[in-house]
Amino acid sequence: MNFDDLSVRRFVTIGRRSGRTVPTRTSGLMADERTVAVVGMGLIGASIGLALRRARPACQVVGVSRRQSSLQTALRRGAVTEVTLDLAAGVRHASLIVVCTPVGLVAGQVREVAGHCTRQALITDAGSTKQRIVTELPGCFRGPDGGAGPVFIGSHPLAGSEKSGAEAAREDLFDERLVVITPTPEHAEPDVRRLTDFWQTLGARVRVMEPAEHDAVLARTSHAPHVIAAALAAATDERDLPLTAGGWRDTTRIAAGDPEMWLQILCDNRDHVLKSLGEFGKKLSAFQQALSNGDQARLRELLETGKTRRDALGS
Amino acid sequence: MNFDDLSVRRFVTIGRRSGRTVPTRTSGLMADERTVAVVGMGLIGASIGLALRRARPACQVVGVSRRQSSLQTALRRGAVTEVTLDLAAGVRHASLIVVCTPVGLVAGQVREVAGHCTRQALITDAGSTKQRIVTELPGCFRGPDGGAGPVFIGSHPLAGSEKSGAEAAREDLFDERLVVITPTPEHAEPDVRRLTDFWQTLGARVRVMEPAEHDAVLARTSHAPHVIAAALAAATDERDLPLTAGGWRDTTRIAAGDPEMWLQILCDNRDHVLKSLGEFGKKLSAFQQALSNGDQARLRELLETGKTRRDALGS
Repeated sequence: MNFDDLSVRRFVTIGRRSGRTVPTRTSGLMADERTVAVVGMGLIGASIGLALRRARPACQVVGVSRRQSSLQTALRRGAVTEVTLDLAAGVRHASLIVVCTPVGLVAGQVREVAGHCTRQALITDAGSTKQRIVTELPGCFRGPDGGAGPVFIGSHPLAGSEKSGAEAAREDLFDERLVVITPTPEHAEPDVRRLTDFWQTLGARVRVMEPAEHDAVLARTSHAPHVIAAALAAATDERDLPLTAGGWRDTTRIAAGDPEMWLQILCDNRDHVLKSLGEFGKKLSAFQQALSNGDQARLRELLETGKTRRDALGS
Repeated sequence: MNFDDLSVRRFVTIGRRSGRTVPTRTSGLMADERTVAVVGMGLIGASIGLALRRARPACQVVGVSRRQSSLQTALRRGAVTEVTLDLAAGVRHASLIVVCTPVGLVAGQVREVAGHCTRQALITDAGSTKQRIVTELPGCFRGPDGGAGPVFIGSHPLAGSEKSGAEAAREDLFDERLVVITPTPEHAEPDVRRLTDFWQTLGARVRVMEPAEHDAVLARTSHAPHVIAAALAAATDERDLPLTAGGWRDTTRIAAGDPEMWLQILCDNRDHVLKSLGEFGKKLSAFQQALSNGDQARLRELLETGKTRRDALGS
């Protein structure tokens, strides 16, 4: 199958849809989103497509990417119904657009999307940090006539994997997972409900948070743990690898994540991450001191605190 | 079903076997181990029983424990063919005995086993540290007439789980996993081969190491990672738990392990663990410094080293 042929054929399909009715911004329910565009066909983007097509088989899902190979994979996996390399064409008829590019590119891509989509469209993202993105983007974009433009509200699905790419996508990636959305006071309640409904349709639970609060908590629960896992993996001599077992394997799993993606996340959320690593360092020092002093009571207490905290989450 | 009745009935079965031929110490192959006693019916002990019965359905597996409930679970799961609360009776007719008690109790239990088993018996353990156990135990025990007694060689199966107890046992726990055995120069080659054959029968690969070398490597690949996982879990506020995802979940999984077991392991292997934590701390500081300085090139390099090391292991 020749990809270029495919791309053209699918793109023609997009082109034909220009006359249809676009749902109004306040119409609310996911049932009304007939065309969703996903910009970026990595693990998250392609999984959104799979989850959406599972829940709403009639929904058109347009995959937009700069990489033909990702689009080809997404098409083959059934994650999208149409694909295009042309962002403007891909988002033109979409009622909802999800930007799933690396976090450092999100703001720029959202601005570009806003210049090409309908005024009624709702735009969101899937970036792991929110403060900078939300600060850089106004909640609403204005059209050339001064009327209301498309709306942007930030999202962060707390789902992922150490694997990346459309090949690793899963239709159940968001099932029972939390998606944090970060509307600002200027957002209208119907838009927030509409975005909530979108993620719920994909199987997720939704929680509304302030962008800064999101970043502070995620530094503790995701970004600092990534650094810790990466440091442990990096500190391990290759010759010791055959003598690792399940413990090292689990503890370092996320260190296999894409370094470029994590570099952007860590730099974006630097202050919170450094603070979280400092807190972790204090707790680690407490373990070291108890062990060094042979203080078994204290060491037991620390191990028990760790177990209690971990058990509270379940396996 | 009344447990005491069961215990008595099963124990009678043991009593009947006193006249049978015991394999000689140098006979080698697992096919000759007709009765194996497992002392301690936790995750490892009961999994040894399950794996052994899978591979050698005709082999008698005697479960010995101080806790009736563990024996009952092991019987119900099919991990043992006979059970007893009486160590002396349980090991009397066994050609091979595996002591699977917490690591701090291993040396004492092996000594007690040696006082009750046949002179031809091979005794091993499953403890996570080896230097102290091997130092405390002579390789061979002498009978009252000065003749050769049973042989002890240390083992450490690098398999386990954050779960514990016979209920969590699995027949495939050792499949393709590494078991380190730590014979000393005084051990005869046939005994080492015999122990190797036993673990291979359970599905494991076997590696021979010096006890001190084992402890140094395991501090880096297992014991220090446990402390790191426990410190991360302990440093996390309960209120943040709903905002954790797969990363935190994986990185802290082993923190759910039994604190008492880990306390013994850490204290047993204190110096190596402290050294390993120091090495980890240096690598973590390098990450913190690069992030603090906004040194993206260095941060990228560190993240890439972590990924390379983790990828070398596979998922």
